[in-house]
Amino acid sequence: MRSVAVDTENKSYSVLIEEGILENPAEYLRKVWTKRRCVILTDTNVYPLYAGKVSENLSEAGFENMIITVPAGERSKSWETLSSVISRMADFGLTRGDGLIALGGGVVGDLGGLCASLYMRGISFVQFPTSLLAQVDSSVGGKTAIDIDQGKNLVGTFHQPDLVLIDPMALRTLDERVTVEGYAEVVKCAAMKGGTFWKLVCGIEAPGEILKHAPELIQQSVAFKADVVSRDEKEGGLRRILNFGHSIGHAVELLSAGRLLHGEAVSIGLAAVNRIFEQHGLTEEGVASAVCGRLAAVGLPLTDELLDDLRVLEVMNHDKKVSKSSLTFVYLKKIGEPAAFTVSLDELAEFIGKI
Amino acid sequence: MRSVAVDTENKSYSVLIEEGILENPAEYLRKVWTKRRCVILTDTNVYPLYAGKVSENLSEAGFENMIITVPAGERSKSWETLSSVISRMADFGLTRGDGLIALGGGVVGDLGGLCASLYMRGISFVQFPTSLLAQVDSSVGGKTAIDIDQGKNLVGTFHQPDLVLIDPMALRTLDERVTVEGYAEVVKCAAMKGGTFWKLVCGIEAPGEILKHAPELIQQSVAFKADVVSRDEKEGGLRRILNFGHSIGHAVELLSAGRLLHGEAVSIGLAAVNRIFEQHGLTEEGVASAVCGRLAAVGLPLTDELLDDLRVLEVMNHDKKVSKSSLTFVYLKKIGEPAAFTVSLDELAEFIGKI
Repeated sequence: MRSVAVDTENKSYSVLIEEGILENPAEYLRKVWTKRRCVILTDTNVYPLYAGKVSENLSEAGFENMIITVPAGERSKSWETLSSVISRMADFGLTRGDGLIALGGGVVGDLGGLCASLYMRGISFVQFPTSLLAQVDSSVGGKTAIDIDQGKNLVGTFHQPDLVLIDPMALRTLDERVTVEGYAEVVKCAAMKGGTFWKLVCGIEAPGEILKHAPELIQQSVAFKADVVSRDEKEGGLRRILNFGHSIGHAVELLSAGRLLHGEAVSIGLAAVNRIFEQHGLTEEGVASAVCGRLAAVGLPLTDELLDDLRVLEVMNHDKKVSKSSLTFVYLKKIGEPAAFTVSLDELAEFIGKI
Repeated sequence: MRSVAVDTENKSYSVLIEEGILENPAEYLRKVWTKRRCVILTDTNVYPLYAGKVSENLSEAGFENMIITVPAGERSKSWETLSSVISRMADFGLTRGDGLIALGGGVVGDLGGLCASLYMRGISFVQFPTSLLAQVDSSVGGKTAIDIDQGKNLVGTFHQPDLVLIDPMALRTLDERVTVEGYAEVVKCAAMKGGTFWKLVCGIEAPGEILKHAPELIQQSVAFKADVVSRDEKEGGLRRILNFGHSIGHAVELLSAGRLLHGEAVSIGLAAVNRIFEQHGLTEEGVASAVCGRLAAVGLPLTDELLDDLRVLEVMNHDKKVSKSSLTFVYLKKIGEPAAFTVSLDELAEFIGKI
């Protein structure tokens, strides 16, 4: 059993990684939860694969539960779905001492965490992330969110789970494209961490090898993120390094209107930010091509016509990480050495003009 | 200047009470906020009285601001208003380093706190409460909320303000009924605190005297609540005593469908719970009539036909403070000595049958 401890200021919890762990989640859940009622939040993709089995397993262990299924896809991170799920939680009669389980990818995790965070001013919740992106990224750190017209993840809270159970076997039931997009976040972490983690990633030459090394890739990514989050739960400073590749990535993702998956946009963002900073002489020569090599090895995109779209700048100006008329980029001095660099919005166009 | 310090686990802030303080709020705001943009959230009742002056005062001090006005009344504590205010905050371009000011009664405070808590996962906010209820109750403790069909305040967060400015002069512009309802919460606090606070309340024989003694009544109530909240920010235990009179009160309020104001329902709840516990021999004889005397002195209701409605029990069964099939009542052993008593839902009807 691989296990990573996440310690935040007010809470500590474990991320357990094991093939087949979703066959009997109750075994681990009962170590953190007394018997209680719970809602299992899932989506239309994951429901037929796991919801019935998980629900039955929990019922047998005395966790009376109800499954709530939302449509698969980013569109479920909306006010409408949020209010509808919370109404169903209330109709089910959940009390403050009950809980919510998010069973699915990043959308289910972000939405479920927000539901748990808001219902009766906060009930406990656990995550069973089933996509690689959710397993390595959104399942650690306690960020919850929905999207609004003005921006992605613009509404949310910090709400830490009591437990995260990661079953790498779940990846075998996903489209390859979905696993590959999650791998962009793995490359992001590995490039910042360096060392043996980066070496491991350097050995991945095809999508199939992601699955083969999934438990270790997940553990390393989660451990890297857990370390950062432990030191800065609410993104006061250090946690911002997790946004490596995301300023440009988010903008491209938004403008693609669904054509690009989040991880694909992050891949484009990572490629771009490394190229830009290498051209400015801030990133050691050769780093951009090394990172791009890792992304390209599994078929992730390195560029997109949207990078030439002037609206990219406009969207970056509205990024929620903008403050006091400047935007802070995360870049690599070299592999294993992330750093921050602040650019005033007036100079942003010129600075990234070299994309 | 009367001042009460509120210390919670993660944050400390001041509640400043002074007649006329809303003439120049910037003087105090700049002690806790660097210059920043802000949204002033208010409602259609308060807007014409204070919003323009406050906005101008803040602008002159370098706090660029925008006023957002929502319809007065509990109906604004809704998903629709919440999402609409947050969209306007985003359109105004508020960043994480900016802030929100809640200028109004309890509805504006609850809604504004939730907007600030959710926007970009939390921005800072301050409260300028203008009704007595908001000044003595909802402005301290960091509870934010909206209502849903299944219950009042069922969706919310804990989000502490950076500063609370209370102008007792604001009460002079309110309907007497609105000031009197707020006074029910003052009586609630005084009965639990006892001592000089209770003596002060015992001298109030008419609504006009509430205004005369407003600064001290507010200070005593805020200090009592601040002390409780400091020791139990998230209602793990002790904070529950603030629900004195609220279990029955909330049910009656809900069933009255707007006929009873919150404080009027609390008054009915306080009268009922004292009578019930005195009849059960748990409250010292004479306490019920003493508390009822204080409420009746300013014209607050002591009973209502809804108390005979069987739906009161049904609503209490769905109270969000219910857990593990029981409901915990707060009662008084005697004036100045609150205590808790748990009743199983099976026995609830019989227990409160003596209303």
